[in-house]
Amino acid sequence: MPEQSFTDNKFERLQAIIDDGAMQKARRMLTALSPGEVAHVLESLPPTERTLLWELVDHETDGEVLVQVTDEVRDDLLRQMDYSELLSATEAMEIDDLADLVQELPYTITREILASLDNQYRQRLEAVLSYPEDTAGHLMDTDTVTVRPEVTLDVVLRYLRQLGDKVPPDTDTLFVVNREDRYLGTLSLAALVSNDTSEIVAEVMSLTVQPIAAITDDKEVARQFEQNDLLSAPVVDDEGHLLGRITVDDIVDVIREEGEHQFMGQAGLSEDEDMFAPVLPSSRRRAVWLGINLFTALLASWVIGLFEATIDKVVALAVLMPIVASMGGIAGSQTLALTIRGLALDQLTSSNTRWLILKELAVGSINGVVWALVVAMIAGFWFNNSQLAILIAVAMVINLVIASVMGTFLPLTLNRMGIDPALAGSVLLTTVTDIVGFFAFLGLATLFLL
Amino acid sequence: MPEQSFTDNKFERLQAIIDDGAMQKARRMLTALSPGEVAHVLESLPPTERTLLWELVDHETDGEVLVQVTDEVRDDLLRQMDYSELLSATEAMEIDDLADLVQELPYTITREILASLDNQYRQRLEAVLSYPEDTAGHLMDTDTVTVRPEVTLDVVLRYLRQLGDKVPPDTDTLFVVNREDRYLGTLSLAALVSNDTSEIVAEVMSLTVQPIAAITDDKEVARQFEQNDLLSAPVVDDEGHLLGRITVDDIVDVIREEGEHQFMGQAGLSEDEDMFAPVLPSSRRRAVWLGINLFTALLASWVIGLFEATIDKVVALAVLMPIVASMGGIAGSQTLALTIRGLALDQLTSSNTRWLILKELAVGSINGVVWALVVAMIAGFWFNNSQLAILIAVAMVINLVIASVMGTFLPLTLNRMGIDPALAGSVLLTTVTDIVGFFAFLGLATLFLL
Repeated sequence: MPEQSFTDNKFERLQAIIDDGAMQKARRMLTALSPGEVAHVLESLPPTERTLLWELVDHETDGEVLVQVTDEVRDDLLRQMDYSELLSATEAMEIDDLADLVQELPYTITREILASLDNQYRQRLEAVLSYPEDTAGHLMDTDTVTVRPEVTLDVVLRYLRQLGDKVPPDTDTLFVVNREDRYLGTLSLAALVSNDTSEIVAEVMSLTVQPIAAITDDKEVARQFEQNDLLSAPVVDDEGHLLGRITVDDIVDVIREEGEHQFMGQAGLSEDEDMFAPVLPSSRRRAVWLGINLFTALLASWVIGLFEATIDKVVALAVLMPIVASMGGIAGSQTLALTIRGLALDQLTSSNTRWLILKELAVGSINGVVWALVVAMIAGFWFNNSQLAILIAVAMVINLVIASVMGTFLPLTLNRMGIDPALAGSVLLTTVTDIVGFFAFLGLATLFLL
Repeated sequence: MPEQSFTDNKFERLQAIIDDGAMQKARRMLTALSPGEVAHVLESLPPTERTLLWELVDHETDGEVLVQVTDEVRDDLLRQMDYSELLSATEAMEIDDLADLVQELPYTITREILASLDNQYRQRLEAVLSYPEDTAGHLMDTDTVTVRPEVTLDVVLRYLRQLGDKVPPDTDTLFVVNREDRYLGTLSLAALVSNDTSEIVAEVMSLTVQPIAAITDDKEVARQFEQNDLLSAPVVDDEGHLLGRITVDDIVDVIREEGEHQFMGQAGLSEDEDMFAPVLPSSRRRAVWLGINLFTALLASWVIGLFEATIDKVVALAVLMPIVASMGGIAGSQTLALTIRGLALDQLTSSNTRWLILKELAVGSINGVVWALVVAMIAGFWFNNSQLAILIAVAMVINLVIASVMGTFLPLTLNRMGIDPALAGSVLLTTVTDIVGFFAFLGLATLFLL
């Protein structure tokens, strides 16, 4: 794939140049990269090289680069900047980007930045900042071009040419509003340039794009963009007044982050985790997750400890017990993954949840029986003990059935309690499957084998 | 959040209506939804209700809905359609969408569809189909509007109005090409309408958008869209001839799928897994993963079996051994998740990989020592045995250090071998941490405790 290897080469070449310490050459290469590409390179560099490179980045693009890197890398870069650098970095940034950045800064610097802005711009920034992070209002850019429904396309075209540079370069759509600034519909530039200039906006405009309330959750906004293939969408207040617009590039980031959150969350990591964070902070963050897991592992050990006397008599139990626990964990994790995705896509409603639980119960039961028989045969031949074979089979069916039910029930309950199932789900689930697995297998053995 | 609950209500209300069997009402509600929203509802329905609803969907939007649902749900829906329905569904679809759909159909139907197309359209479809799935060429739409660099904006505007309906409604950018159809640059509609009409295209066009080679991997395309905040991008052949364009709505799907692939892959599930698939096919798919995991669990049991005599003498070993294995598994999974994400984002190069491995080794060693001390204290007091405490501490350090190294080494090696680390990584890793954990702990006990 030539394009891919070209890109790889570009980034790898830059890294090699930095490793060599050829800083003038690196600076020249940097100027040919977009802010997003510079962000990518910075994220891919270990601390020392990252610091070196950050000093080489043209200060005019500092702000745009800061917006594109992940939160943790951004904090790292911000720490290297002084007041004046921060102030100049925030010049000429778009409102939504600036809002994103300002929140990460100490209050004293934020105040200075706000003071340095002209009145109108500051008011617009404060409007965006008044909405919580992860809402449409916080994602929006207030820089929109609006037109009235009663004018002709010719008038719109003349108006845009008059605006000139002030038309945001990523504009694909104009918003049609009435005198009270209430949102009425969209006029795409494609429609504007392909229709007769004597037509009236109201006749050409589209009514299909639903306005997004400013307090809508950003993941819900992302779903609306996905379901309707939007490039941009209007954001309105409670009364339908146009506040700004959201563009799809911000939505792409929301979707990427949502995916990484689910993936990294299972390992107890944040989606913002910096791959090249220094050793000590990394160790500290990981330690928390290991501590939580030690607690659950101790619970499992405690259950095993209850049956020490049984294991003492039949050592084969100690050999086989991890199989029961691990198969339950795997079956449950599959159901868990499916349910967490369903919740994330907002596809679980009261009426279909019951169907899902019953289906997962059926799937768990079928696989429980199938693999119980396989494991029973192996265990029976291995230890030449048919009673042991029956016991492990029963324990496995119990654990896989409970695992399937918990795999749906647990994330649904966590979600209702406001706890993120992508983070807590897998720890809790394997705790359950370990404890149930050990308890069922060793308990049954105590009852029937001794 | 009113907007969210509004949407929820819309979908939940529709589900309730279907549950009640009020099909005329459901049909009316469906007409108010976009194809993407219909797809969402279909994905959220159990088999019977899904079949019912699919019959209610207006046949004119069938094609667009089919493009929006996940592969597995699409197969389910296609199975319900006959030849004539399929033929009419594919009418008036965009080339990239049709290419996507045609591949899922039996060859006989594909042939009929191709035969029903006019010559020019068929040739363009075949061009798209000639590129492998998951490449830029397969994602592209050949329906582009091109202009010459030497004409004035006024000429461009007149040309677009002449094209009228033929301008694709999602056009945000025109592509500038020379006489040989080689890509030269982009003319955004925003630039077109905000500059003076007497200007020449060459003066206004932008050179910043790099063309994408048709054989570029779709994940790489997604990264270029993300890094450069693109709405659309030109696709070219080896010699720079313009072949078509990729729009960001397809990129959003690629990013969503990539995230789901990583998340679902860890549980051995496909990102296309249908949450409401029937029980038997679901069970069969899950069984494969359970079988693979049974094999690895048996390996771990076999290792424990080697030390039966030791456990027979010191039962406490059976109680404590899961702690060693599980802590190694957790530490390794964290490193694994970080490395898999780094690979997916194309952020790992030869020069920074070494740094990553050393950092993870350091993090693993620090946490290994810290938690080894904690576990040693607990084990020592629990069983009143200081020798046992020292042994478990040493075993834990060994396992966490090896887990950290394997957490980076394993996905990198799998990736180089062309095996998807998101799928195979976590199984292989926990196999290693189980075996190393049991072997280290029980082996050391055999050497020093007996």
